[in-house]
Amino acid sequence: MSEREMTRTEALMSVVRTKIATRVLVPGDRLPSVRSFAETLGVSPSTVVEAYDRLSAEGVIRARRGSGFYVTSTNLPPMALAEMGTPRERAVDPLWVSRQSLDAAPSVLKPGCGWLPADWMPHEALRRAFRALARADDTVLSDYGSPRGSLTLRRLLLGRFAEEGIDAKPDQLMLTGSGTQAIDLICRLLLRPGDTVLVDDPCYFNFQALLRAHQVRIVGVAYTATGPDIAAFEEAVTTEKPRLYITNSALHNPTGASLSPQTAHRMLKIASAHDVTIVEDDIFADFEPTLSPRLAVLDGLNFVIRIGSFSKTLSASVRCGYIAGRADWIEALLDLQVATSFGGSSPVATYVISHVLAGGSYRKHMEETRQRLTRARNVAVDRLGMLGIVPWIIPRGGFYLWCRLPEGHDSSVLARRCMDEDVVLAPGNVFSISQSAASFLRINVAQLGDERSLEALERAMKTPL
Amino acid sequence: MSEREMTRTEALMSVVRTKIATRVLVPGDRLPSVRSFAETLGVSPSTVVEAYDRLSAEGVIRARRGSGFYVTSTNLPPMALAEMGTPRERAVDPLWVSRQSLDAAPSVLKPGCGWLPADWMPHEALRRAFRALARADDTVLSDYGSPRGSLTLRRLLLGRFAEEGIDAKPDQLMLTGSGTQAIDLICRLLLRPGDTVLVDDPCYFNFQALLRAHQVRIVGVAYTATGPDIAAFEEAVTTEKPRLYITNSALHNPTGASLSPQTAHRMLKIASAHDVTIVEDDIFADFEPTLSPRLAVLDGLNFVIRIGSFSKTLSASVRCGYIAGRADWIEALLDLQVATSFGGSSPVATYVISHVLAGGSYRKHMEETRQRLTRARNVAVDRLGMLGIVPWIIPRGGFYLWCRLPEGHDSSVLARRCMDEDVVLAPGNVFSISQSAASFLRINVAQLGDERSLEALERAMKTPL
Repeated sequence: MSEREMTRTEALMSVVRTKIATRVLVPGDRLPSVRSFAETLGVSPSTVVEAYDRLSAEGVIRARRGSGFYVTSTNLPPMALAEMGTPRERAVDPLWVSRQSLDAAPSVLKPGCGWLPADWMPHEALRRAFRALARADDTVLSDYGSPRGSLTLRRLLLGRFAEEGIDAKPDQLMLTGSGTQAIDLICRLLLRPGDTVLVDDPCYFNFQALLRAHQVRIVGVAYTATGPDIAAFEEAVTTEKPRLYITNSALHNPTGASLSPQTAHRMLKIASAHDVTIVEDDIFADFEPTLSPRLAVLDGLNFVIRIGSFSKTLSASVRCGYIAGRADWIEALLDLQVATSFGGSSPVATYVISHVLAGGSYRKHMEETRQRLTRARNVAVDRLGMLGIVPWIIPRGGFYLWCRLPEGHDSSVLARRCMDEDVVLAPGNVFSISQSAASFLRINVAQLGDERSLEALERAMKTPL
Repeated sequence: MSEREMTRTEALMSVVRTKIATRVLVPGDRLPSVRSFAETLGVSPSTVVEAYDRLSAEGVIRARRGSGFYVTSTNLPPMALAEMGTPRERAVDPLWVSRQSLDAAPSVLKPGCGWLPADWMPHEALRRAFRALARADDTVLSDYGSPRGSLTLRRLLLGRFAEEGIDAKPDQLMLTGSGTQAIDLICRLLLRPGDTVLVDDPCYFNFQALLRAHQVRIVGVAYTATGPDIAAFEEAVTTEKPRLYITNSALHNPTGASLSPQTAHRMLKIASAHDVTIVEDDIFADFEPTLSPRLAVLDGLNFVIRIGSFSKTLSASVRCGYIAGRADWIEALLDLQVATSFGGSSPVATYVISHVLAGGSYRKHMEETRQRLTRARNVAVDRLGMLGIVPWIIPRGGFYLWCRLPEGHDSSVLARRCMDEDVVLAPGNVFSISQSAASFLRINVAQLGDERSLEALERAMKTPL
């Protein structure tokens, strides 16, 4: 369609919009026929059709099959929808940070959120991938994905695993809709309501939200700078008889700590002796300067299930995760994925991810991202130090800092105060089963660039309780 | 990168592949440094870097951070993965058709599958959408979606609902990852293991697979050409005390029948009297020549929850579904979606869907699709008639024909025989709770184009039991 026609179409659309706004046309009224309206306005019928179609797509008018176009009875101002955010007064529970950050307006600052700012992501590579996608086979654009998911992407993952020393067979791997969905499917397969599941204390708040949805008992194990407290872990495994333990071994969320070889070895010994399955969530792997110990590597996918995704490093809009584990479990998980999602991971998503990874620029992008994060982390440590906020440890990578507040401050109170200033924080207790982290905050160093975050935090700390 | 460099990169890649294939380089070996290899081969270092990066992406070699590239220990022939299909001998259960059709190789014919052939989908519009996407905002390409999902797409849906007579408020609608995920979320919210759920007999097989995953009791209600048998429905509601009833009101899967106004009215009266929630799966709406009665319209989203998706008409690769229902339930469902998937529907997916719908060509595409389906249906009825296979009814739209086989044939037996000839059928009993549909087959008229389907079916019928 030519520029000129486009302008005419839009002019015609606004004519109709005005008639509706001024109630010349009211809901239920039939619009002029294409032919007559085209004559009246001296435009081509195709222009009228295009305008009517676009207005229908907007929901302003509606085509009744075979009987022309009618004004719809919807008069929603866009804001009515735009304002459908998360109620700010909702309890500061494990879903609080997710809902506040996911629903945040563009103007809201999110040092509490769990992802990198959009301008840190590999957009040029993504745009190249979408241009290539526009030329891809029809089946990629419109067919359901196979239950296991893209062959190319599975090959790539098996290659990475092999290099780490995990000799996974093709039938031990499947792609999923996301990393979260991967854990959800595993819970559906292995858990029944009332079962017990171990998590770290503190742990990623969404593990708690997810496990609550499965109606299981959640038991926390104190977390140290080298992984879970082994004595506490053994105690919990022995007395609580958990079915599952869910953890991040590398760049643990929220602490940023990584497992030591000794802790990893002892944990596996204990878990295998008591037949506890371990879900190792490996989404932060590419943020490590060098790979730290992994339970999946030591164990070789017997007691350990590895899951991961590309949401933190490549795109959270083009989502895809994976599960690597025992072949019989993967086969059962494929059935579960079909039953609960139908089809596997989106071919469009896996095409884009494979294209970016195969393009070669990804490795360089991640090297730059790691350096950029190191700089941001150093700045954050200094700036937070000025407020008396001290990191529990300095992580070797990633974007999290688990920080202790000065005496007498409650991070949930600060989070509420900052929310009123459009700054989303991640208060310690949303990560803590024992609710023992009131004096901690998880800070995303990549999201701390805007001065207003620290200013809001400083003001919140100055306000007396 | 220029054409020439590209060729050089590929030449260099094959040099490395050959060294590995001939075991000149074995797993663990370090590859030559970029500089030295570039000198040896007389190419630019950037060419070597590009080749190494692409080989890494393929999993053939791997960069150890800061210490060069190494040969990985993976030597998977691509086929090892390609062959990871669904075991053909698996039981003909509610997941049989899904797994066989989703895993089918391109050469396999699928008259039993539940979607249109790729060449029936609006690819030009999809390709335009992906080209536009390549120019879209960074946030669309890489951010998580908001829990409720794209504002544009929700506006469009509310406009359509309003025109049907459903005055849904913005807080009564959310987008999901797919139509199946929409039902799954509703089951998570409203069902507990041991609850009872009513479905039609026959019904879409994946309703059974999904409900089994929720460990609930499934009770079937005989289905007639105008909807469920009202007497049976009332009996089941009174005696079985179901929490939920899941159905398709329009172009019912597998029968193609649509609800009559009287049946719709009576069902609602009974359901509301016994506080049964009805999930009305509306995914076939755009295949109707004119809209038939809807429970959601009669009820106004009190006892009825409407769900739908764009997978059947627009793309099953760019997936998105929706849920419209009571506001308090939607708010709870948003938490559940965050807990189990994190983030809402993919911004990339909703951008593409909105772009296609707003482009205007969608309406015309669907009009052509409906006409094309009518022609395909008429041909199918005649061709099947020659084999003595007779449709239960002639649907007013859609791509399904629910067909009765001649005396003495079992559709599961025919399905197995045809599977051996690379033809996937949908045998009646995978749709039937009471297992009373052994003499029925669900035929997808759009997938019947290839002669070999009917030839295989004819041979299968001639083979004695």
